[in-house]
Amino acid sequence: MSEYERLVGDLPVRDADAVAADVAAAATVLTSGFGSVGYPKAVPLALAESDRDLSLTVVSGGSVGAEIDVELVEADAIARRFPYQARSPAREAVNACDIAFHDRNISTLGDEVQYGGLADGDVAVVEALAVGPDWLVPTTSVGQTPAFVASADELVVELNYSVPTAIREFHDIYRPGRPPNRRPIPLTEPDGRIGDDRIEFDPEKLVAVVETDHRDQPYEFRDPTDDDRAIAANLGEFLEAEVRRSPLFEDSLRIQFGVGSLGNALMSALGEADLGGRELIYFGEVIQDGLLDLVDDGDLAAASATSLALSSEGQDRLFDDAARYAEDIVLRPADLSNSPTLVDRFGVVGVNSALEVDLFGHVNSTHVGGTRVMNGVGGSGDFNRNAPLAVLALPSTAADGDVSRVVPMVPHVDHTEHDIDVVITEQGVADLRGNAPAETAAALIERCAHPDYRDDLRQYLDRGLAAGGHIPHDIETALDWHTDRL
Amino acid sequence: MSEYERLVGDLPVRDADAVAADVAAAATVLTSGFGSVGYPKAVPLALAESDRDLSLTVVSGGSVGAEIDVELVEADAIARRFPYQARSPAREAVNACDIAFHDRNISTLGDEVQYGGLADGDVAVVEALAVGPDWLVPTTSVGQTPAFVASADELVVELNYSVPTAIREFHDIYRPGRPPNRRPIPLTEPDGRIGDDRIEFDPEKLVAVVETDHRDQPYEFRDPTDDDRAIAANLGEFLEAEVRRSPLFEDSLRIQFGVGSLGNALMSALGEADLGGRELIYFGEVIQDGLLDLVDDGDLAAASATSLALSSEGQDRLFDDAARYAEDIVLRPADLSNSPTLVDRFGVVGVNSALEVDLFGHVNSTHVGGTRVMNGVGGSGDFNRNAPLAVLALPSTAADGDVSRVVPMVPHVDHTEHDIDVVITEQGVADLRGNAPAETAAALIERCAHPDYRDDLRQYLDRGLAAGGHIPHDIETALDWHTDRL
Repeated sequence: MSEYERLVGDLPVRDADAVAADVAAAATVLTSGFGSVGYPKAVPLALAESDRDLSLTVVSGGSVGAEIDVELVEADAIARRFPYQARSPAREAVNACDIAFHDRNISTLGDEVQYGGLADGDVAVVEALAVGPDWLVPTTSVGQTPAFVASADELVVELNYSVPTAIREFHDIYRPGRPPNRRPIPLTEPDGRIGDDRIEFDPEKLVAVVETDHRDQPYEFRDPTDDDRAIAANLGEFLEAEVRRSPLFEDSLRIQFGVGSLGNALMSALGEADLGGRELIYFGEVIQDGLLDLVDDGDLAAASATSLALSSEGQDRLFDDAARYAEDIVLRPADLSNSPTLVDRFGVVGVNSALEVDLFGHVNSTHVGGTRVMNGVGGSGDFNRNAPLAVLALPSTAADGDVSRVVPMVPHVDHTEHDIDVVITEQGVADLRGNAPAETAAALIERCAHPDYRDDLRQYLDRGLAAGGHIPHDIETALDWHTDRL
Repeated sequence: MSEYERLVGDLPVRDADAVAADVAAAATVLTSGFGSVGYPKAVPLALAESDRDLSLTVVSGGSVGAEIDVELVEADAIARRFPYQARSPAREAVNACDIAFHDRNISTLGDEVQYGGLADGDVAVVEALAVGPDWLVPTTSVGQTPAFVASADELVVELNYSVPTAIREFHDIYRPGRPPNRRPIPLTEPDGRIGDDRIEFDPEKLVAVVETDHRDQPYEFRDPTDDDRAIAANLGEFLEAEVRRSPLFEDSLRIQFGVGSLGNALMSALGEADLGGRELIYFGEVIQDGLLDLVDDGDLAAASATSLALSSEGQDRLFDDAARYAEDIVLRPADLSNSPTLVDRFGVVGVNSALEVDLFGHVNSTHVGGTRVMNGVGGSGDFNRNAPLAVLALPSTAADGDVSRVVPMVPHVDHTEHDIDVVITEQGVADLRGNAPAETAAALIERCAHPDYRDDLRQYLDRGLAAGGHIPHDIETALDWHTDRL
């Protein structure tokens, strides 16, 4: 026990197996976790290792670790799953329709669970670094835990001793009230604090505290590729001009990057951009390793997120110096990290990736070939829609160049042409603002597509222009690129 | 001149022809107007009737009347047009690619023009019922006028004597500041007032006041059809259960309806639903005739919108008794009427229509056959995305039953499966919340599609299920329904 007391009061400490045995076979389980960290580990593992015939509905904040999306899946214990998954056993089960998966935007999930009829939570299982009779302190992510704790009938807390208690200094827990008497969110600075380091709950709900010291199984980031570096250079050049042109960036640049290796590489490279002395502020959903580099180099003034989605090495680095990093970094509930009104209020530039984009600016983030889901839409929709400047950043090709990511028509749409302002690949930058669809298509072909695919794309566009209409698709052949691949 | 002075101070009153002659041939013109009312008439007509070779960019708040989208279009004077058009000459020119049209969401258009680089306004031409040296009072719509007046280099005011001065009592003009120092919108009640009845401007900008008494050329609503009545009955039944089930509607129901005859019919019919004594409050973008019926019958506690999009008869009715209606109705800038955070804060139920919906909940609101635009996305995306309960209401067929509006795959997506909660046709109600895609497809086929098309839809779904994947599309045949029609 450190100087900060982790287990306060006379709480019902139980072992994970006993707790798991009390979970109903068809229960709806709401879990903490976001960015593959801060999720419960002991109870999911105990459920997976039991011999029971389970058909759970599992709702997490965002992506979680192997204890849930590998072990529980392989035990055939999950019947239904929201809102995101990022491990291959879960993905395979979803694509085989063995798990009924429903993909949701991040910013509204807490409300949808608490008020919206999406799921009726029987038990919330959440990780904490400290717990008392009517409060808990989250660990490495906040996610949807405040809403889940408020809406589930029962609460199980996994008290994880492996997380330093100093992590509490990152937390700013605030949740707006219930509509229509919800108040305006009083946050007026990206790194402001309007809440507490703990989540309060009805003490009647607490049925068990499970002690554990299992560490997160977080993301592994790959090293930046040549494409990553070229995209970063194009993004940097675009932003250098944009901050000088737009009144939104007179004093500072507020920016978000999507989760993953590309986002991590772009974030890391941003320190090299010449922003003319403007402050750089991160307002997004996850803190990745690249962001720690910016903090260490003095290139970042502040950061707001809902998850410390670091690699294991990044976690060690942060855990060793948590109090210092907490001076610049705030963790909020995902309702706030991804809040439409805060993204708008702070004028955030959203930078997100995707599987592919079509000639008219529609984006597929989730479904390969239109049918097989990868992870889920995550927070990309929150930022693409609400950021005053939404940038789609992706390589022009996939599969070692065998597949173009610029296609005639995407076979699945997660983000529409109403939401994407600028597309950046390693080839160049296409600024789509104010374009008619035919202009968008020409810009994407000539500036973003890989040269190997430009002729075919030009031929498609010519067929569409001959067919006529505001969006010059040739519907007869619009999906041929995808059927040929199938 | 009424007791309320309309023309205050020594202003540059000029005639429309002289003002039009000063507009540069390739100017970007920002106009008032929303819901086909409150748009400028005299200057657009003078531009249309001049013999000049014009290639204007015209940006309106929302839909406008014939003086712009018929006369100016037929004079071949418009080269580029945002964000919406609803008259057939404009539509035809856009679909012939004679006008470069860019379709945008309503809630963010003001920001996009003022800060986002979408358009660089040379002159704002806006209708007012009164004007002074540094202020104007809008007429029958507010739309994007505050942002347009703030961002254009010059300002022309059309002072319209046909609009009663009492209309000013509807206005509540507030615009949040510039990000990142934008403050939280302080509105805490749907019908609260946080602003003024006038829009202020830099007096240096005012180059002309043009006096006119041309009336709006507003919407014509058709009489409700049998399908409209059946959809209204299904919606009423659904809402009666939902208000009793969800904690969001403990005391009141806040609701929005899309623009048009179906929305108008649904609005009108809502007075018949048994809401268990809950207050009914409208929070949307337009006041249509059906809403006046609710006010007159005492069935509506309050209404907030950005436009009095009434028929000519509706305008007469409102003009005759404006002060009384203004007790219950507030007009706001479109940034606020459609604001994501206000739609969320007040827990609004969004009810919008569309051209078609596919088996997996993707919605096409704008492009017939995927290519030919109708009007534009308008505010439907603001409400579908941000409403905690988003209802899509549409007939199951079009073209006298020859076309199913439930299709395997929509050829254009305006709203994704992440945004639509419930689909209602005259056939029934499909509640999609928490469904996996295959469940959504089955629900839409069995409850919403017209019986004549169910077998074909079932066959498509079976082919998709055989092909496999989380979204069981059969990509090979996904668009066949649309190519067969072409």
